Order: sequence, then C-alpha cells, then structure tokens
Amino acid sequence: MPTDAHLFIGQLLLIMIGARICAELAFRVGIPAVIGEMGAGIVLGPSLLGWVTPSEFVSLLAEIGVILLLFEVGLDTDVTRLVRVGKQATIVAVGGFLGPFLLAYGLCQYVFELSTLVSLFIAGTLTATSIGVTVRALTDVGRQDSPEGQITLGAAVLDDIFGVVLLALLFEFATSGHINWNQTLEVFLYVTAFFFLAPVFANLLSAALCWVDQRPHTLGLIPSGVVGLVLLFAWLANLFGAPELLGGFAAGVALSRRFNLPFGSAFHVNERFSQEVHSEMQPIVRLLSPLFFVSVGLSLDLSLVDWSSSAFWWLSLSLLAIAILGKFLGAMLIRENLHTRVAVGMAMVPRGEVGLIFAGIGYTTGIFDQKTYTSLIMVIAYTTLLSPFWIKLYYGVYGHRVETRRPNT
Amino acid sequence: MPTDAHLFIGQLLLIMIGARICAELAFRVGIPAVIGEMGAGIVLGPSLLGWVTPSEFVSLLAEIGVILLLFEVGLDTDVTRLVRVGKQATIVAVGGFLGPFLLAYGLCQYVFELSTLVSLFIAGTLTATSIGVTVRALTDVGRQDSPEGQITLGAAVLDDIFGVVLLALLFEFATSGHINWNQTLEVFLYVTAFFFLAPVFANLLSAALCWVDQRPHTLGLIPSGVVGLVLLFAWLANLFGAPELLGGFAAGVALSRRFNLPFGSAFHVNERFSQEVHSEMQPIVRLLSPLFFVSVGLSLDLSLVDWSSSAFWWLSLSLLAIAILGKFLGAMLIRENLHTRVAVGMAMVPRGEVGLIFAGIGYTTGIFDQKTYTSLIMVIAYTTLLSPFWIKLYYGVYGHRVETRRPNT
Repeated sequence: MPTDAHLFIGQLLLIMIGARICAELAFRVGIPAVIGEMGAGIVLGPSLLGWVTPSEFVSLLAEIGVILLLFEVGLDTDVTRLVRVGKQATIVAVGGFLGPFLLAYGLCQYVFELSTLVSLFIAGTLTATSIGVTVRALTDVGRQDSPEGQITLGAAVLDDIFGVVLLALLFEFATSGHINWNQTLEVFLYVTAFFFLAPVFANLLSAALCWVDQRPHTLGLIPSGVVGLVLLFAWLANLFGAPELLGGFAAGVALSRRFNLPFGSAFHVNERFSQEVHSEMQPIVRLLSPLFFVSVGLSLDLSLVDWSSSAFWWLSLSLLAIAILGKFLGAMLIRENLHTRVAVGMAMVPRGEVGLIFAGIGYTTGIFDQKTYTSLIMVIAYTTLLSPFWIKLYYGVYGHRVETRRPNT
Repeated sequence: MPTDAHLFIGQLLLIMIGARICAELAFRVGIPAVIGEMGAGIVLGPSLLGWVTPSEFVSLLAEIGVILLLFEVGLDTDVTRLVRVGKQATIVAVGGFLGPFLLAYGLCQYVFELSTLVSLFIAGTLTATSIGVTVRALTDVGRQDSPEGQITLGAAVLDDIFGVVLLALLFEFATSGHINWNQTLEVFLYVTAFFFLAPVFANLLSAALCWVDQRPHTLGLIPSGVVGLVLLFAWLANLFGAPELLGGFAAGVALSRRFNLPFGSAFHVNERFSQEVHSEMQPIVRLLSPLFFVSVGLSLDLSLVDWSSSAFWWLSLSLLAIAILGKFLGAMLIRENLHTRVAVGMAMVPRGEVGLIFAGIGYTTGIFDQKTYTSLIMVIAYTTLLSPFWIKLYYGVYGHRVETRRPNT
C-alpha cells in the first residue's frame, strides 16, 4: 500500500490550497498575490505551523515551476527589444552586482571585522536578484512588458549568470583555499556559449514540433512536447553550468512569435502554433509556478531568528541597507529619468533562490554561524517578501511618470 | 548545487520525450497511442535499455497523472446514465471478478498443486481491471461515452473497489494467518461511504470555487483550485481505504455539467465555469497522464522472464487464458447482443496497476517465487499491452454492430 504517496499528496495539497487561499486574500486587500504565495510557505513551514517540511518531491516540482515561469516570460519576450536595451541592462546588472558585493564585503571585513571568507560569502549572498520574484512582481502590476520591465528582465538574467559564476568561484575558494581563475573563465565561457546557442537550437526543435503539429497527431502533443523541450533546455543549461531557469527562458524565447533567427525565416514558428502553445501552457505554468514561491517561503526559517539580539539587528539592518542601496546604485547609472531609475532599482531588489543557496552553503559548511545565517535570512526575507508590495505602491503613485527615452515599440 | 534535480529532470525528460515519440510512432502505424506510451516504459526501463529506474518522484507524478485522468473521465460522465447502467455494470463487475478469481484459484490449487496462500494471491492478481488502461483504450477508439463504454466504466470502478478490499483481506491473511471478517466489512463500508459521500461533498466545494471564479480573482484560480480539489479527494479516498483514483473520479463527477444533487440545483455548477474547467484542465491531464502509462511499462520487468522454461509457459499461458475468459464471463451475463457483450468483455481485460501491486506484494514478501512472479508479469503485460490493440481492431470490424438495448441518450 503506497502510504508514502498519501503523505506526499497531502503535502502537495496543503501547499496548493494554502497558496491559493493566501493569494486570494492578498489580492482582496490589495497586496500582490506573490506575497500571499510566499506567505503561505512561511505559515505552513518551519517559521510558523511546521505542517510542511520541504521535501525533495515538492522542491523538484517547485524548480520545474520556476523553470516554466521563465519559459512563459521568454515566450512574451521580444528578443530584438531585449537586445536593444542590452547596454542599459548590462549597466544595471554590473552596477547592481558590484554595488552590494563591494559594500557588503567592506562592511563585514572592516566594520564587523569578520574573516575574508565569511565576508566574501555574505557579500555573495547579497548579489543575485531573484529573477522569479522580480518577474512576478512586475507581472502583478502589469509592467512585465514595459521598456523598464525589459531593462530589469535583461539585468536580472545577467545577474543570475554572474551569481552562478561567483558561487562556483567562492565554493572553490572555500573548499580548496585558492581561486582557480582558469576554471572560473571556463564556467563563464560555457555559460555564455549556452546563452547564445540555446535559443537557436531550441528554435530548430520547436520548428520540428510545429511541423508535427500541423499534421495528424495524437492528443496532448503540445503540452508534453513543449514541457519536454523546456526540461531538455533546463537540463542542458545545468550541463553547461548555467542556471536551469535560463534553459526555460531560452526555450521560451525560441518559441516566441517574435523570435527571428539571423539566417532568415526558414525556421520561423507559425503564428497559430505559437498561439496554441501559449494557451495550452498557461494553465500548466499557473498550476506549478506558485509552488516555487511557496517553497521560497518554506526555506525562510524565521523561527531561528533571535529577535532580541542587538548584534543580530545591527548586522541585518546594515546588510539590508546595503542590499537595497547597492541595487539602486546600478539602476542610477543609466540615462533615464529619476522615476524610471527608481522603478528599475526597486524591481532589482528581491533576492531569493540564489541568495538562499549562498546562505545555505555558508551555513551548512560552517563558514558562518547561525547569527550570521539568520541575519542573511532576514535580509532575503525582507527584500523578497516586501519588494513586490513597494513596487505596487510605487507604480500606483508614480506609474505615469515612469517612461524611457526609447518608448515601447 | 542541486545535482539531484539535474538527475530527476533528466529522467522526467527522457520519459516525457520517449512517451511522446513512441505514441506518435504507434499512431502513425495505426496502433493505439497508449500502447506506444507503455512501450516507451518497456524500452527505457529495466526490460530493455535500463536508462530509467522507476524513482519515487516519477511514480508520484504518474500517480497524480492517473488520478487526473480519472478526474477527466468523471468530468465527462453523466451520473444519471451511469446509475441507469448500474445493474448491468454490477453484473459485469461481479462476474468479471469472481470468474478469474475462482478459475485461477482452482487451477493453482488443484492442477499446479500450489499452496492455498499462493493460489489466493495469484487469483487476486488476476481480478482487477486496470481502469486507467481501459478508459484510455476506449478513448483512443472514441467510445468512452458510448452506452457500452458506460457499462464498462461502471464495472471497472466497482472492480477497483473489489480489488482493494480483496487486497486488504489477503494481506491480512498473509501476515496474520487468519481472515478478520469484521475488518473486511469495515473496509467495505468505509469505501462505500466514500463512494456515496465524496461526489456530494466535492460538489459543494466546487460550487464555492465557482462562486470565487465569478468574482474578481487572481490568475490561475482554476488550474490550482481544481487540481487542489482533485488531490484533496484522492487524499480523502486513501484515508477511507479506497483507491486514490476514485477520489479523482468523484471530484470529476462533481464538477461535471451533468451532475445534479438530489436536493435541487442550488449548488449546480454553471455551464461557463464547467467549460473553463474542461479547457484549462485538459493540457494538464494530457501532460501528466502519459507518465502513468510509461510507469506501467517501467514496472513490467520482462528481463526477469526465463523464456526457455516450459514450466513458465504452462503456468503463464493457462493463467492468461483464465484472465481473458474470466472477464468475458462477466460480460456474457448481461442482456445485450453478442457483439456488445464481446466489446464489454474485451474492454475489461486489461490488468495493470492493482494486479502489479498484488504480484509485487506476493513476490517481495516471499509468498511466491520468481517463476510465478514472472508468469504473472507476463499475463499482466499481455492483457495490458495488447488489449487496446484488440479493442481497436474489434471496433474497426464490428463497431457498427455494437449497440445496447437502451440507446445513448
């Protein structure tokens, strides 16, 4: 008798219904739904009730959920426009990466007098923007397709790549005591190669799928064919050392109506097929992506925090300030009006999955102690949970003043 | 670095793409797609290539897949019609349950001179129709909604309940040496209670969901709300000792357009909502249900079979004959024309999940040896893999003569 199945189905059930109820409640009181979903994780997880302990089954589904979310984002992305904002996005990404990293490193090394390794890991934790949370927060205010949304998306994607390369580098440093620059360069080259080759390769495969779709075929070709394609690219991304969700993004971009290969329209996906992919994938993405946000909430164990410790407050509040200011630093460097720069900066603030991985590795390998770990969890929780709220509030007040020099075309 | 995720995603990927390719190939040569999907499991699994070992992650997804498939079947079911064929379905189920059970028991006990316990377990393995395979085979020939399809569906559902009760009973007998009739009665009562209460309760919840859906709400209400509902009833079914997929079926029946509660239409789900549920759930069901059929193929380890042993052939061929004739026995007892009775009998032949559970328990607890186990695997493989093919062939030749006295209304 499969009693394990009973347990896992019960867990999945709690997460799904909890996320749905919290999202609806958040929506009713005017808070972004994504906060409700992460809140469900906080409530159900170790922070409060402890009913759900993150299992491998749920975290795998959550991972597939965020990969599919990035697929959907890719599907709506116009590569030409993304390339056009490339320079701005790079400035935001590099500034928003170096800003928090250098500031946090300086603070930890010279003010709190922590060791180099600890300072480097803390600084690393604060670098990477959570592309999932950022995208959802922009979608919840309907600006994912805006020019500043494109800048943010491009910057968040680059940021994620930087984060993975940095993590590989620091992990090497932590375990072997020295930095292997050759290997770092190699990782960087592989990731870049994946980034440029994947959409082209994915486009060829999606043209094949479109070809089959136009002939008599079995039911369910689109959902399973497309999810198969997305998982293939997530798997390949991981093989190349890139974040899995970038594989999903690449597959989405390739299936987008607006994707054009350099060598002509021979492999152009037809309009009707693209439309079908969109409508059949939407329920699947909307079913699975909340699992990711719930599992972010589940991994934030706030019960570890010693709220009465002043050392905790000093460290976490100063890191929080740096985490926020550092991201704004990048956004302030682009040539747009102030309201737009602030909007981009705010959207870059959410940390999340990559930050949690950094903090988790630092804690489990004993690089830093529980106090430091909970300070970081606090910073991640604040930036992740509240950013969508501030973004919604900001767009509510200044939304009409947010514009870019190159209007949306 | 989540390398486990890499492994599981790779596995899921292989299964999804393998199933898709085999289904398309089967379809091209005129074989039911479901055989392609099960074949993918045989090819990828331990029988041939051994690339995929059934993991908990995949089998949980497969289980959710078959629960959702039964949900979809429930959604298309007209309860009034199902009740109308109730008597016929009961005759088919009881006959098709007792037929193989008694014949197999007699054969094993008196011809092959096996012990009582072994004979009982073998007989149990041959009883339960695979509701999943039966439904897919009928869908592949477009007869899931026909009057004889309804008889078969009703009979397969009842059969599944009998199978679960019998399994509980035999398991008790195998471990404690005696049969606890009180407990058996209790299991039976619980299952029956679930069977009658679940659709009513599910209907109340779906009316609530429909109420929320008609007001402003967050995106993704239907896919996650409905899947949540389905999982809830699968979980409750398990709690009541009933097969999980019956929970999915109950939830589907409750959300069906044609479901009427005895106490009026106060909780009637509205037409537009039902339509939306149908179109949003379809891609999800079609994505996940093939995983179930692949995992049936994965669990049939044909590499264990010693094809040169004559004892193996004697046992498996005689059990196979009984497995097929026994099911026809039930179908022959109803008052329809011969072609219809044969059609119902054929559709009842596929064994599968429940049979595999019986055989698996018998083998792992040492009740019977590997020769007996592989004979049973052979019988299950034959009835499961080839039935959809015979059904398609039969409907191709005699389809126009298959009719019931009470025509489809």
